[in-house]
Amino acid sequence: MKPVDSHCQTFQRALAVLSKPWCGLILNSLQGGPYRYTEVRERTRGPGDKILSARLKELEAWGLILRRVDPGPPVSVSYELTESGRSFGDVALAIERWGRDLKPLPGATRPARRKAAAR
Amino acid sequence: MKPVDSHCQTFQRALAVLSKPWCGLILNSLQGGPYRYTEVRERTRGPGDKILSARLKELEAWGLILRRVDPGPPVSVSYELTESGRSFGDVALAIERWGRDLKPLPGATRPARRKAAAR
Repeated sequence: MKPVDSHCQTFQRALAVLSKPWCGLILNSLQGGPYRYTEVRERTRGPGDKILSARLKELEAWGLILRRVDPGPPVSVSYELTESGRSFGDVALAIERWGRDLKPLPGATRPARRKAAAR
Repeated sequence: MKPVDSHCQTFQRALAVLSKPWCGLILNSLQGGPYRYTEVRERTRGPGDKILSARLKELEAWGLILRRVDPGPPVSVSYELTESGRSFGDVALAIERWGRDLKPLPGATRPARRKAAAR
């Protein structure tokens, strides 16, 4: 991609997803799914239920994850990545590689961790 | 990267940069630099001066860009990517490729564009 293309819609669209707190982590946590809600929460290890639920709804609306309801009983809700969601894996790899070059960023915004999930 | 590694510090560190509005676009706009401040503003085409200046300071503090002052006269300030900043190029490519798969995200947060820069 040439720098002059940096403002192309595809780039901005993808950045808009990544700039939402937890979205990148949630997408990455869903690799290898489907997972039930409690598993997603465990794997994401960070956002509280309210935020996690909101993000899952957004990611579903954006076509990145699928929510399936098994009527049971007992009712069971699970989440899995769509094809677009799975292809985030390449982005995650590139981000993780780049992160190795970065020094700690004391002033960077970072979502607060749930106390209950802190380890 | 395995999903279970999603919370590794390097990934979170890089995501913290990307989750700051404009940071990804600014880094991408600086590819091929150095550029003077007015050029950076023109290439970034979006944030106002206050936000752009703040982001440039943060990116400098995080070791991603270098700010050089040529005492002149006239005094001239230019910005260029460090090695870590340049290696963001691989991330930008992956993000742009992934963005092609995404459908428009009506509810996604997106920094407001400067009216003066709207095209």
